[in-house]
Amino acid sequence: MINKERIADIYKTIQQEITDGLESLDGQAKFEEELWERPGGGGGRTRIIQNGALIEKGGVNFSAVHGPLPEAVQKAFGVEPQDFFATGVSIVLHPNNPNVPIIHMNIRYFELSSGKYWFGGGIDLTPHYIVIEKARKFHRGLKEVCDKYDDGFYAKFKKWADDYFFIPHRNETRGIGGVFYDRLHEESTALTKEELFNFSVDLGRSFVPLYTEQVQDARDLSFSENEKNWQLLRRGRYVEFNLVYDAGTKFGLQTNGRIESILMSLPQNAGWFYDYKPVKGSLEEDTLGLLKKDVDWLSL
Amino acid sequence: MINKERIADIYKTIQQEITDGLESLDGQAKFEEELWERPGGGGGRTRIIQNGALIEKGGVNFSAVHGPLPEAVQKAFGVEPQDFFATGVSIVLHPNNPNVPIIHMNIRYFELSSGKYWFGGGIDLTPHYIVIEKARKFHRGLKEVCDKYDDGFYAKFKKWADDYFFIPHRNETRGIGGVFYDRLHEESTALTKEELFNFSVDLGRSFVPLYTEQVQDARDLSFSENEKNWQLLRRGRYVEFNLVYDAGTKFGLQTNGRIESILMSLPQNAGWFYDYKPVKGSLEEDTLGLLKKDVDWLSL
Repeated sequence: MINKERIADIYKTIQQEITDGLESLDGQAKFEEELWERPGGGGGRTRIIQNGALIEKGGVNFSAVHGPLPEAVQKAFGVEPQDFFATGVSIVLHPNNPNVPIIHMNIRYFELSSGKYWFGGGIDLTPHYIVIEKARKFHRGLKEVCDKYDDGFYAKFKKWADDYFFIPHRNETRGIGGVFYDRLHEESTALTKEELFNFSVDLGRSFVPLYTEQVQDARDLSFSENEKNWQLLRRGRYVEFNLVYDAGTKFGLQTNGRIESILMSLPQNAGWFYDYKPVKGSLEEDTLGLLKKDVDWLSL
Repeated sequence: MINKERIADIYKTIQQEITDGLESLDGQAKFEEELWERPGGGGGRTRIIQNGALIEKGGVNFSAVHGPLPEAVQKAFGVEPQDFFATGVSIVLHPNNPNVPIIHMNIRYFELSSGKYWFGGGIDLTPHYIVIEKARKFHRGLKEVCDKYDDGFYAKFKKWADDYFFIPHRNETRGIGGVFYDRLHEESTALTKEELFNFSVDLGRSFVPLYTEQVQDARDLSFSENEKNWQLLRRGRYVEFNLVYDAGTKFGLQTNGRIESILMSLPQNAGWFYDYKPVKGSLEEDTLGLLKKDVDWLSL
């Protein structure tokens, strides 16, 4: 029987599997762990990796929190005062090498004492330099996970990611997207609660293999100072998205969440160069040209 | 007679005086200028200085824009559809040397076709390392300008700056504050419109001398890698404030303003180090201990 304790347990196991996998992928750095408690109820296990051979800064956070639903959230959800439970795993990795993409993943489960529940989550990729073959592989991998559950999921969640990971003031997507979903429950899909949970588990377990595929070869490519600066600029856009638009970050800041866990998504450094324009015909210009919604990566 | 054309003219002159003053202070870099037009009406003159002897990245922006009041602003102000006019000068300077403070200034005038008008603005200082004697000089200088117009201004606007330049999620002020005011008009003060305008002009003209005083000696101090990293971290906080809380930035992003002028306030680079804690008894810890509201800098 699926219940919140089991969901939290398995999400916690997934965090463990992912940090094991990433340590082995990095080959040098180890995660440092911090256990924390939430004043209102529950807590989490934040794991941070820094200055690795592959990963400059990354975090894999697990949390399972509960308590009275904050007033701001009651209003946002349009529900009565009641208790909530939320558990999830979230990840952001910033690699050293500009040829390796930034990656983000989140799987989460939310439940109200009234009995309502839903799943949310997603994986999206932010290459500093887009390599079409790699982008195709990434989307193909996500489609495979989706197709096991519902053959409409990939198209729907791919579009959702395009819309969500968008920076209006730059008129750019954050990267090549991926999948994003929210408020998934039995009534909004043809799946049972257990199947929806299994979908999130499969997505979580696809993270390490998908990122490994992105990292291969790319991690050994040399890069110039110009390419490093472009990485800093792309990281600046990442900071802009997370601080201005990301719903999880906003929610965390507004509800007085644990600030270091919320902002672990920010890179070790980022840059802003006034009115930067890529050189005509450069790889930077190619990438910028692909930071658009509705690119069909599978057949590009 | 004071009217919007004259206000804009003089603000534009102040931009010129300030960029002249800053070029001479920097001694090496020159401002680059970009003229831009606002699709809805009016435009601006953005001046950017980069990679100077003193200033790593800085912008001094003048604008005078007009047109139909955007719907979002109508709602925020609670007024009928009508035309608006807005003009102002805004500045952010990020110096190379961590011993030199970041500084921000803004003076602005806003008018509605209904006849309502107000002045807003302020100057605030963000030292990477707070030096009490220098902080006192800065506040003393601002108090002198305020006292010429109303002996209640300094206390009121100093508190306003403390409240405004505050980062709730860090429980830190952005720096040592300064003065901040908004919605100043004849009925809310004992001054005429002309006097309020003169106050903003005096504030604008105090900028170069006040910053020069901060820069003296400090610019020649040597610094370690550790101090440079602390500067990156403080710049990270600056980015957080500007992207999450700053009203001008939010307004610009929501109303589709000229993005490079809005975000010229961001530093060339900034850093986030997970869960950074300053060493006990260090200068970094001293500074952190002073990033509080309601510090009485004049008598500290």
